[in-house]
Amino acid sequence: MKAIVVNQPGGAEQLHVKDATIPSIKPGELLIKVKAFAINRTDIVSREGKSGYMSNPILGIEVAGEVVEAAEGTTIEIGTRVMGLVNGGGYAEYAVMPADRAMKVPAHLSFEEAAAIPEVFLTAYQTLFWLGNLSPQETVLIHAGGSGVGTAAIQLVKQMTDAKIITTAGSQEKLDFCKTLGADIGINYKEQSFDEEVLIATNSQGADVILDFIGASYWKQNLKSLKMDGRWVLIGVLGGAMVENINIRELMEKRAQIKGTLLTPRSDQYKKELTEEFMSKVMPLFDQQKIRPIVDTVFPFEEIQEAHRHMEASKNIGKIVVRVLN
Amino acid sequence: MKAIVVNQPGGAEQLHVKDATIPSIKPGELLIKVKAFAINRTDIVSREGKSGYMSNPILGIEVAGEVVEAAEGTTIEIGTRVMGLVNGGGYAEYAVMPADRAMKVPAHLSFEEAAAIPEVFLTAYQTLFWLGNLSPQETVLIHAGGSGVGTAAIQLVKQMTDAKIITTAGSQEKLDFCKTLGADIGINYKEQSFDEEVLIATNSQGADVILDFIGASYWKQNLKSLKMDGRWVLIGVLGGAMVENINIRELMEKRAQIKGTLLTPRSDQYKKELTEEFMSKVMPLFDQQKIRPIVDTVFPFEEIQEAHRHMEASKNIGKIVVRVLN
Repeated sequence: MKAIVVNQPGGAEQLHVKDATIPSIKPGELLIKVKAFAINRTDIVSREGKSGYMSNPILGIEVAGEVVEAAEGTTIEIGTRVMGLVNGGGYAEYAVMPADRAMKVPAHLSFEEAAAIPEVFLTAYQTLFWLGNLSPQETVLIHAGGSGVGTAAIQLVKQMTDAKIITTAGSQEKLDFCKTLGADIGINYKEQSFDEEVLIATNSQGADVILDFIGASYWKQNLKSLKMDGRWVLIGVLGGAMVENINIRELMEKRAQIKGTLLTPRSDQYKKELTEEFMSKVMPLFDQQKIRPIVDTVFPFEEIQEAHRHMEASKNIGKIVVRVLN
Repeated sequence: MKAIVVNQPGGAEQLHVKDATIPSIKPGELLIKVKAFAINRTDIVSREGKSGYMSNPILGIEVAGEVVEAAEGTTIEIGTRVMGLVNGGGYAEYAVMPADRAMKVPAHLSFEEAAAIPEVFLTAYQTLFWLGNLSPQETVLIHAGGSGVGTAAIQLVKQMTDAKIITTAGSQEKLDFCKTLGADIGINYKEQSFDEEVLIATNSQGADVILDFIGASYWKQNLKSLKMDGRWVLIGVLGGAMVENINIRELMEKRAQIKGTLLTPRSDQYKKELTEEFMSKVMPLFDQQKIRPIVDTVFPFEEIQEAHRHMEASKNIGKIVVRVLN
């Protein structure tokens, strides 16, 4: 089969297609004929050799495709259209998926659309509800509203709670799109101080929950934007990882809860439980077409380098997907 | 009545006794004839004029004494021996206490012992279980094991869970005492690197919960001591408030949860709920004499300056109490 690997740690030019052996499955696993996969920031970190937790030389953590082989005891039939997280190996014609993470693709969605669901919607669900404990009457600040996780989070909040949604993005086009998904207030961080706008929008109270993909460059403003007893979930460091001078007395006085998280390195058991809760609580909303995957661009398999560069340029609204023809 | 107020923001020499009017009670409140009160770090912060949340000019947030007046509708009888948190005004012959925070003093305890209970045991309970979510098979790192909150926390963990207790202190005398209360491992932070010792004691896993009274000076070592998915509760900044250069990628990779908290500025409703849960779950252990207040020194009312200086010297094991003769 064809698969995409990294020549040596570095830029997008290090990605290339090579021949690889079709992987074999173990108990509890499915072999998926991959029809589409999506690109994630964590793939870029792996490509650069900066994370130590990916053991599979083939990149890729989520796929959509057809089940072609199922281990004994699994209950999913051959031929089922599924999507879900994989433990690496997603950038390939075939990939192995633990059966307890396989979600059936709703009939009205294509494989390209389905590939845009698992990572960002599971991440958004986990950060909003498991870590952020977002309650109906609260306010959530979602940074990078046009990103994959941002567009997922806005929809989940809108459809599952009455919470107020404030989002930031770097262009009017992105903010307008976020409003069509359900954002109540959009802030262009290039033109406005988002902390001041958050305080204006919340009667000087601040946001109960912050989804922070940005990190260092937003630190002080996020702290100002956080309400008393607020939960601040760290899920990315697009604006740098090193924060100079944190006053922890302020964290105490605000009774702030800062929660770091990453989804990819978590255990199989955690991903199983998260997927199961997501299937029961969120998948019906996909079936009813109240929530939808947001696909920015679909690239052909051979253009993987362009797909990575497109993500690194941060111009996408929603997910970047790669189609696998086989 | 006699009461202790602050001349002007500053050192212990600013504390003096003056005549004040006996306070009057509102619905839901009790008037307490104060027999003893305890000194807390937050009193020192208030004395220095560094916190903005104390509106009562008389210091003091916890007392033990006798009920001399009760608002209509309250169910506590005149003459009952009670202890509990007050909204300032504890350093006096009479103080007002919301009735839903009044805990009956166990028969075997003196007022001086009872005054040593509310603040530190409620704080330790809140940080260990409400914020730290400490589970039976986990490990907790309790800094300042000889302090009021430290001695309370060690006893609560020992009597209420099977969790392993690691504590730090600055002298062998304090560590020996912590072991009599139930600590499994004692680390002299003046002679050992506590993070290395924590990793040795936990098979390189780290502690699930850290009770951090120290802040800046322990930051890097606390982060090293924290287990994956660990909860790190900030409840004091004895070692400074400003931390330079925090790498938030490390917080994400460890999936750390940092939770700042202070008890005194919290709402009446919160203190009511915390007191109620504490009365049902912990007070029986006091009645059975499995848990006991730890009193370091009892000062007479007139020696309030010495009492504050004694706390500032950090030589106490357990609480510093002031006796009120009236």
